[in-house]
Amino acid sequence: MDDVGRDGVEGRGAASERLARGAQRFLANLGAAAVAEFRLPSGRRLDLMALLPDGTLWGIEVKSGVADLAADRKWPEYLDWVDALYFCVDPAFPLALLPEQAGVMVADSFDAQVMRDAPERRLSAGRRKSMTLRFGLVAGRRLQGRDDPA
Amino acid sequence: MDDVGRDGVEGRGAASERLARGAQRFLANLGAAAVAEFRLPSGRRLDLMALLPDGTLWGIEVKSGVADLAADRKWPEYLDWVDALYFCVDPAFPLALLPEQAGVMVADSFDAQVMRDAPERRLSAGRRKSMTLRFGLVAGRRLQGRDDPA
Repeated sequence: MDDVGRDGVEGRGAASERLARGAQRFLANLGAAAVAEFRLPSGRRLDLMALLPDGTLWGIEVKSGVADLAADRKWPEYLDWVDALYFCVDPAFPLALLPEQAGVMVADSFDAQVMRDAPERRLSAGRRKSMTLRFGLVAGRRLQGRDDPA
Repeated sequence: MDDVGRDGVEGRGAASERLARGAQRFLANLGAAAVAEFRLPSGRRLDLMALLPDGTLWGIEVKSGVADLAADRKWPEYLDWVDALYFCVDPAFPLALLPEQAGVMVADSFDAQVMRDAPERRLSAGRRKSMTLRFGLVAGRRLQGRDDPA
């Protein structure tokens, strides 16, 4: 049995993966690079960290449903590490529930679309530098692990 | 027939891959991330571009043998894009032939070792910023291509 419940409803994990895949494809079309499960210096993991071609850093938190959002009291901490934070949700998600400090992206498996821009809170130059370095190290090491698992 | 000639001698491609793998493992042990076939803004491709945890960028050119080095008249151009350039060679390579503007790394399939430090020519702040961004974009997009080839 994969991640589909007894009643045929898609589980939270499968739904999140599907939405994250759509968001990653959308970002790839922007020329951005996105890394899943990106560990911040605080120790928390962002669902996706995206580096845009202009150097902007977007954090993207995938929410499979209202319960998933309600259970997350930690998301405001992500605001300190990105230029913009987005929630990525299914088209059926009641968008009015999503907090205004973040933007909104609606996704399916194949693509995503920004429904509401995030209020930009530009990172300081020093933090941008350290986060861009971290992005390169995380992405490069993970790529190397895929190509040479030994 | 793989990349081994009729007389049992390892071909240039196989030798280069072996040395590059050793260099990548050495770099991973330093906490660095390395990306193979890294395209520079000039259009040329470095065999390996490494991002070190302190933000330093190393270019690494793998030379399978003396003929491979002799055939390369382009390597001085790489100096403009990195803090340090290294040649990575087999232990049997006559090290005295390697130019002094670059450092020397000796490798096998499993590891590598720096035999001579590269003279550091620090990148300007602007170029470091743009190259670190490029590194993140290249590594992140390539990782995404591995995980979602569609």
